[in-house]
Amino acid sequence: MMNPRLQHQLDFLRAVDALKGIKRQTLIATGERQETDAEHSWHVALMAWVLGEYSKAKIDLFKVVIMLLIHDLVEIIAGDTYFYQTKERKLAKAREQAAAAKIFSLLPFDQAQILKRFWEEFEERKTPEAKFAAAMDRVQPIINNFLTGGKSWREHNVTSTMVLEKCRHIKNGAPLLWEYIQQLIQEAVEQGMLPA
Amino acid sequence: MMNPRLQHQLDFLRAVDALKGIKRQTLIATGERQETDAEHSWHVALMAWVLGEYSKAKIDLFKVVIMLLIHDLVEIIAGDTYFYQTKERKLAKAREQAAAAKIFSLLPFDQAQILKRFWEEFEERKTPEAKFAAAMDRVQPIINNFLTGGKSWREHNVTSTMVLEKCRHIKNGAPLLWEYIQQLIQEAVEQGMLPA
Repeated sequence: MMNPRLQHQLDFLRAVDALKGIKRQTLIATGERQETDAEHSWHVALMAWVLGEYSKAKIDLFKVVIMLLIHDLVEIIAGDTYFYQTKERKLAKAREQAAAAKIFSLLPFDQAQILKRFWEEFEERKTPEAKFAAAMDRVQPIINNFLTGGKSWREHNVTSTMVLEKCRHIKNGAPLLWEYIQQLIQEAVEQGMLPA
Repeated sequence: MMNPRLQHQLDFLRAVDALKGIKRQTLIATGERQETDAEHSWHVALMAWVLGEYSKAKIDLFKVVIMLLIHDLVEIIAGDTYFYQTKERKLAKAREQAAAAKIFSLLPFDQAQILKRFWEEFEERKTPEAKFAAAMDRVQPIINNFLTGGKSWREHNVTSTMVLEKCRHIKNGAPLLWEYIQQLIQEAVEQGMLPA
């Protein structure tokens, strides 16, 4: 009875509701609880609109926003792997590739292709859009970790060297924001939130 | 030391984190808990991209997505007023106007003007973008209420007549989706999720 194209679209929209059930290591700014992947995705998408002018290169901001809305969907199937667990992150890659194929293929073929390409582009971090989106994806948790006294950093034995190393690519997307983030990390170290 | 424009933008991005702390009456699809405003905003923004082709009129989809990312920010200050409480909704209007002035003015003037206008446009529901965005804002909770057995409808003594009446404007934004939603409401009545 229902348009089969609409049926696929609604199946996808129902499946992605599960992003609300995935907890991140980062806390919401009040420190009360961990934020969910859906909340993080909302925050970075809005952040991209607000901070778009700091992109190093000219970007299609709409594409960046959509990229950020979908960048964590693979975690619905592959789960969240903590960013600073380098070994686990490598193993997660293959799982996430398979997850992307699965989750996006719920959509009609044309839309599945677009979102899967956006996700791959985001992961490869080569285009101006992907570099800026990746910067947003790193800036947001650093700010929230700072706002919550570095609790999540300390719980996971993260050091400032690790943050600087894993997040330096912010510079490739948004150099001025990288200046600011470096200052914030230094302040976090001085305030004892983050071991040097 | 820091660029004052960037300082304003970061103040705004920090303040809006509070959207993660506002619980809605709608449950997440597993039924485990209420969803937050930030999660809802993420879901409807992505929904707009996926279902954009069903808009009655030609729309600027980027504008719709940004509108939906910010449409509930006023609730950070004004609080969430349940959609079916008509009297309370009217009182909430003035509170939300004041809240919009306050929350958006954290941003640099140019950006504050843009987002405040987007929010007013959304509320007025006159432009094709606002009509489609408003449709998304209604379709998502109806689907989630259906997926969770109508628990939230029954808890608030909502009837199918009320849903049909308050949500008929979906037709103005996306006629085909309104057809689908009417079928879903009928199914909800037949399954005893929603009193006629």
